[in-house]
Amino acid sequence: MTGRPPVTRRLAELTADLDVTQLPPEVVHAAKRCLLDWLGVALAGSTDASAESVRATAAVVAPEQAAWVVGSPVRVGVLLAALANGVAAHVLDYDDTFNPGHTTVHASAPVWSAVLAAAELTPTDGRTALAAFVGGFETACRVGMAAGREHYDVGWHVTGTVGHLGAAAAAGRVLGLSADAVVTALGTGATQAAGLKNVYGSMGKSLHPGKAAADGVLSAVLTRSGFTSSADVVEGPRGFLDVLSTGAQPQRALDGLGTEWLVLQDGFKAYACGSLTHACIDGVLRLRAEHGLTADDVAGVDVDVHEYVVTTTGNASPTTGLEGKFSVFHSVAVALVDGAGRSRQFTDERVQAPEVVEVRKRVRAHQDPAQTKHSAVVRLTLHDGRVLTTSVAHNKGTPGNPLTDAELEEKFLDLAAPVVGERAAAELARTCWAVEALTDVTTLLAAATGPR
Amino acid sequence: MTGRPPVTRRLAELTADLDVTQLPPEVVHAAKRCLLDWLGVALAGSTDASAESVRATAAVVAPEQAAWVVGSPVRVGVLLAALANGVAAHVLDYDDTFNPGHTTVHASAPVWSAVLAAAELTPTDGRTALAAFVGGFETACRVGMAAGREHYDVGWHVTGTVGHLGAAAAAGRVLGLSADAVVTALGTGATQAAGLKNVYGSMGKSLHPGKAAADGVLSAVLTRSGFTSSADVVEGPRGFLDVLSTGAQPQRALDGLGTEWLVLQDGFKAYACGSLTHACIDGVLRLRAEHGLTADDVAGVDVDVHEYVVTTTGNASPTTGLEGKFSVFHSVAVALVDGAGRSRQFTDERVQAPEVVEVRKRVRAHQDPAQTKHSAVVRLTLHDGRVLTTSVAHNKGTPGNPLTDAELEEKFLDLAAPVVGERAAAELARTCWAVEALTDVTTLLAAATGPR
Repeated sequence: MTGRPPVTRRLAELTADLDVTQLPPEVVHAAKRCLLDWLGVALAGSTDASAESVRATAAVVAPEQAAWVVGSPVRVGVLLAALANGVAAHVLDYDDTFNPGHTTVHASAPVWSAVLAAAELTPTDGRTALAAFVGGFETACRVGMAAGREHYDVGWHVTGTVGHLGAAAAAGRVLGLSADAVVTALGTGATQAAGLKNVYGSMGKSLHPGKAAADGVLSAVLTRSGFTSSADVVEGPRGFLDVLSTGAQPQRALDGLGTEWLVLQDGFKAYACGSLTHACIDGVLRLRAEHGLTADDVAGVDVDVHEYVVTTTGNASPTTGLEGKFSVFHSVAVALVDGAGRSRQFTDERVQAPEVVEVRKRVRAHQDPAQTKHSAVVRLTLHDGRVLTTSVAHNKGTPGNPLTDAELEEKFLDLAAPVVGERAAAELARTCWAVEALTDVTTLLAAATGPR
Repeated sequence: MTGRPPVTRRLAELTADLDVTQLPPEVVHAAKRCLLDWLGVALAGSTDASAESVRATAAVVAPEQAAWVVGSPVRVGVLLAALANGVAAHVLDYDDTFNPGHTTVHASAPVWSAVLAAAELTPTDGRTALAAFVGGFETACRVGMAAGREHYDVGWHVTGTVGHLGAAAAAGRVLGLSADAVVTALGTGATQAAGLKNVYGSMGKSLHPGKAAADGVLSAVLTRSGFTSSADVVEGPRGFLDVLSTGAQPQRALDGLGTEWLVLQDGFKAYACGSLTHACIDGVLRLRAEHGLTADDVAGVDVDVHEYVVTTTGNASPTTGLEGKFSVFHSVAVALVDGAGRSRQFTDERVQAPEVVEVRKRVRAHQDPAQTKHSAVVRLTLHDGRVLTTSVAHNKGTPGNPLTDAELEEKFLDLAAPVVGERAAAELARTCWAVEALTDVTTLLAAATGPR
């Protein structure tokens, strides 16, 4: 065992002992931003067919139970509630992103879904929920960093795999497990860790964070009920890192543990589409606003971008909302026409709208080795002959250019209002910002059931 | 996709279309043997602390539901019932074993647990249940063969991983899914496939088949509820074989499909201990019976065995029942003293019994390159100076030396009677042998609740 740092135990100790009154205020605030964003994307996602399918499943396998499902007045079994909320939070590909370069984790979907489902099982105040989330976020993202690029490259959906560990730790914290017991819960969580990229393009992708949340809650309850596991599941022989990565660096999970809080590096998507197109949208919106332009003023748009933008979002003729989300041409066009990149810019209807299609034909994308995945140069050629140029170094929503609280709330309201109404959405936002004042966090979910 | 045989679709078609009236009678009979053995080990396993822990968990997360848990009068949610039954069926390490050389799958625990849980959701007769089991067995074992030794060696518990696919296909057959839908259910099942050897030695090992069963049922219900997945999860890019094995041979999954039925190669453990000691027990019991010996006649026992027997079961001084199960010395001694290798020969009490300990000291094990893992030479040196020798080529319970139906039923009664009583155990055995006559297979579980 020489050379294997005690990752499992250290992460369990961190999570079990975490107390929000001891955390830097900005960390607690970041956790609340995650909650607000999670709730917004989950409410919007709850109207997707995938979430409806999970609710229909819950009605069969776990009916007449007590846990809330976001966006629905129906209460179901706690594991199915975790599943439904995790699916809804991820299905729009609009949830938060932790990406330090060698891994990508969307941690709020599995971790907040697990925290709030576990809170159905024991009285849980807002401070406890925040602590559990921060511990689960650290656990998921740190194991993801340790697993490294090799874990991602072979075909694992990292959010699904490490989400199991984050959710297990967080649910354990909600249930008040000791550090020893969280070690065990991590063992049980990690031995359920799964998620194949083969199912990308189907609802299966969103299953992963939902399943991580459900399995995490199950792990914590099993542990509390006496179910045993190993003591070193992350770093131990034939454990998570050994089996699921050929290039794991276990020590990475512990670097800065307890002093560097990864939730501060979390990003929030500003636009409801593939993140590779965001820098282009930023540039278009900036020039549009600065110069008071409309699409009618523009003869052509040129964007200089990272090669991934061309190879991954190079669909010049999308026909559905989903295709539009992964088309730099549509994203740029609709930003120019509508001055926005919200969910309503990526509906089937908007992707097929003649005025958008017309502008789309005037967009050209150029590979530029000087650009990163988060930067772009945007040039608008106007009918009057002027050429307006702007550079975006870090697209909005990344840690280098974060959304303000106001922008984050604006995104939330845009997502939540169509589901619960404007007044309830505004009230939910207020509750999220002051979640530490709740004596029972499940009241947040009880207020997020939507009009149905 | 050239070179990738359509494994997912072919397995789904086989399972969806399977009809017991079209199967060779010996295949149907083999499936019934699996059911009888599954029920016996699950009943005995239901008294283990791991199964109690799962039932306690179910009481928290899925109470007041309608599905039966073997060995308990309590009914819980269908997914938790599948979990509890799968755990109980595997926890004693006494369940059936498919081992063609390059993989080991204990398929009945995940697949029968899934079939009978899914049967709680829709009226299911005995013939449908048998068909679903055969399809699930083929699916699990064939994917295991395709994944190969590399899958096992890296640290996956094969029963947990491929169990997810077997359980998903079988549950899909119970729910009457089309072949297309079983393809989807396999996608959802496979993307949940998990199970790390790191948790061996804890209850976590038995979690794996239980979780496979539960996730398989979930996959089938999700599919019926409209949840989508990929079309080629087994063989496709970044699919199960790509991600979980470095040496997969997809074609192996299809060799002989529909003509060679792997359930005919399934093995049943004759003795309640590690399989590596079984050939030695066979030899001892044979000489003991042929010569009318008791332990008092024997001055010493020598066994010539495969090196694994010495390295894996070489504990000369076990102190617990569990240690006794993995001690060739105890296994040989207790067989000589008791003339048996049942569960009562592997209790803490029996391992510590002075008369067994005394004989144990007279057992010697010798590595012999001529032996396989399933063969042994046993020599008894008697006090009267005679040396009795016998060779066992294939230990009892392996396909080369199968248990007779009578022996299998004897094993069942030994396991079931202490839990449900002798009369109920005998009745359950009769029901299993005639399961095709049941109009509702859940009546089998309803009769297996035990005295509690």
